[in-house]
Amino acid sequence: MNKLLIVGTVAFDAIETPFGKTDKILGGAGTYIGLSAAFFNLQSAIVSVVGDDFPQEYLDLLTERNIDISGLEIVKGGKTFFWSGRYHNDLNSRDTLDTQLNVLADFQPKVPENYKNADVVMLGNLHPLVQSGVLDQLESKPKLIVLDTMNFWMDCALPELLDVIKRVDVITINDEEARQLSGEYSLVKAAAKIQEMGPEFVVIKKGEHGALLFHGSNVFFAPALPLEEVFDPTGAGDTFAGGFAGFITQSENVSFENMKNAIIYGSNLASFCVEKFGTERMVSLDKKEVVSRLKQFKSLTQFDIEL
Amino acid sequence: MNKLLIVGTVAFDAIETPFGKTDKILGGAGTYIGLSAAFFNLQSAIVSVVGDDFPQEYLDLLTERNIDISGLEIVKGGKTFFWSGRYHNDLNSRDTLDTQLNVLADFQPKVPENYKNADVVMLGNLHPLVQSGVLDQLESKPKLIVLDTMNFWMDCALPELLDVIKRVDVITINDEEARQLSGEYSLVKAAAKIQEMGPEFVVIKKGEHGALLFHGSNVFFAPALPLEEVFDPTGAGDTFAGGFAGFITQSENVSFENMKNAIIYGSNLASFCVEKFGTERMVSLDKKEVVSRLKQFKSLTQFDIEL
Repeated sequence: MNKLLIVGTVAFDAIETPFGKTDKILGGAGTYIGLSAAFFNLQSAIVSVVGDDFPQEYLDLLTERNIDISGLEIVKGGKTFFWSGRYHNDLNSRDTLDTQLNVLADFQPKVPENYKNADVVMLGNLHPLVQSGVLDQLESKPKLIVLDTMNFWMDCALPELLDVIKRVDVITINDEEARQLSGEYSLVKAAAKIQEMGPEFVVIKKGEHGALLFHGSNVFFAPALPLEEVFDPTGAGDTFAGGFAGFITQSENVSFENMKNAIIYGSNLASFCVEKFGTERMVSLDKKEVVSRLKQFKSLTQFDIEL
Repeated sequence: MNKLLIVGTVAFDAIETPFGKTDKILGGAGTYIGLSAAFFNLQSAIVSVVGDDFPQEYLDLLTERNIDISGLEIVKGGKTFFWSGRYHNDLNSRDTLDTQLNVLADFQPKVPENYKNADVVMLGNLHPLVQSGVLDQLESKPKLIVLDTMNFWMDCALPELLDVIKRVDVITINDEEARQLSGEYSLVKAAAKIQEMGPEFVVIKKGEHGALLFHGSNVFFAPALPLEEVFDPTGAGDTFAGGFAGFITQSENVSFENMKNAIIYGSNLASFCVEKFGTERMVSLDKKEVVSRLKQFKSLTQFDIEL
């Protein structure tokens, strides 16, 4: 089985949406990526850090899904990264209520020995120096390196971000961030400029409006599945990235054509994630549901105009 | 050849975008619908009204495309409907600078005798009483009646709008308008509620984010083609509607499956419309370009996950 190395936060989230609020629940980019990638036939490991306030039950939840947590450092006496946010009524925007870096402040990632030759590396949203630090530890060039990031790092660590962007094959980023990073309003122009920064493939996530994949002059678009109700968007982007990276790892094929399928798998998994609070839906999800919804994606977009 | 009856304004527009501004140029929903539908193998007629300030050159432009203008009333001494607007930098929103109804204020539509048995009727955005007035004159039930409308009529003529909505098969409406009409934020729920108002098919236009077609529990999504530059969005929605209605008229098939193709044709034609000011691009467009871009639409959305 191919190996997927995941880097990203493992955290506590407290979330408020128009539908309710949660206490501290399991969250973090690394968590969502791991849970999503676990739907594929692969080996995976998460490199991250938590405090010793992190419940064993959450660790078990990861290991039950065959996720190697030997690279998940547990800091004695430390507190786990905590994020709290409140979504607006349209669920398209949110306010951060609290961010406590805690153990994340001094995090030095350590890649497990047997993942230094990972086939695919998924760098979840984290400080660009942590992302670079992971790449520095690799002993062989992965088939694909995927990087996710956000506007926060463009604001406060742009040179470090540009350095790590140079080293990756795929960047996933949302539409506003693509505009900020490139200085271009048109997403077509933005994607072209970002490709010049390093990544051969640019994935632009548009939330409820789907996702675009750019590679040279090739473009592919995957819609988000129209849902009756979005309950909690937290983790949707990470779940998308995990599905994308997971499918590529399983299929060992980094062509543009195969990335189309990876984008569809990512969108498919993300469509489940938003149905309940936090990781709840991803934890209860089974493979039959995933396949059944893939059929919906197919009928949502396929047409038969003869050309 | 099948007959398409088009109702909608034929007008002067003055447009400002970040790329420049125009004097009074040819515009109006009926005009855009007519120009777009003219790419299909059909007979069409426009029911509308202009003043005698309307240039012969614009009338010729319509008749050269085989559009019957015997239902286009020319009011002696009257002035043509005029709209002026300024788009914001993102081109997703605009301010109306001026609206002069002129001859439109007292417009009584008259359907040409030989279109009272039209196969398809496309009711472009106009006062709902004018739209109803056209349906009242029909002598046989069309295969399909498509209605386009906007928030303005929901604000100031809602009962009349609901009356005409009851009588149509397809409604095309943008996302914000669908939310306003239904009182539902979720587009899935909005489409279900609007279907209960009468139309079996609901098309929700999302501009640069594509279009959704709803019919019972079936959904289809067509993306907008990602463009380097959108020059002027004026008329894109009408061009979309014209392509949709034109393809249905030509193909004589009102199944959900065929409407998928119609939505793609509509999106395709709209993607040209926005490339230049006003009707300029639609006038210079040829069928080869249309077919070539259809291939782009196919590669933009088609994937081959085996299920």
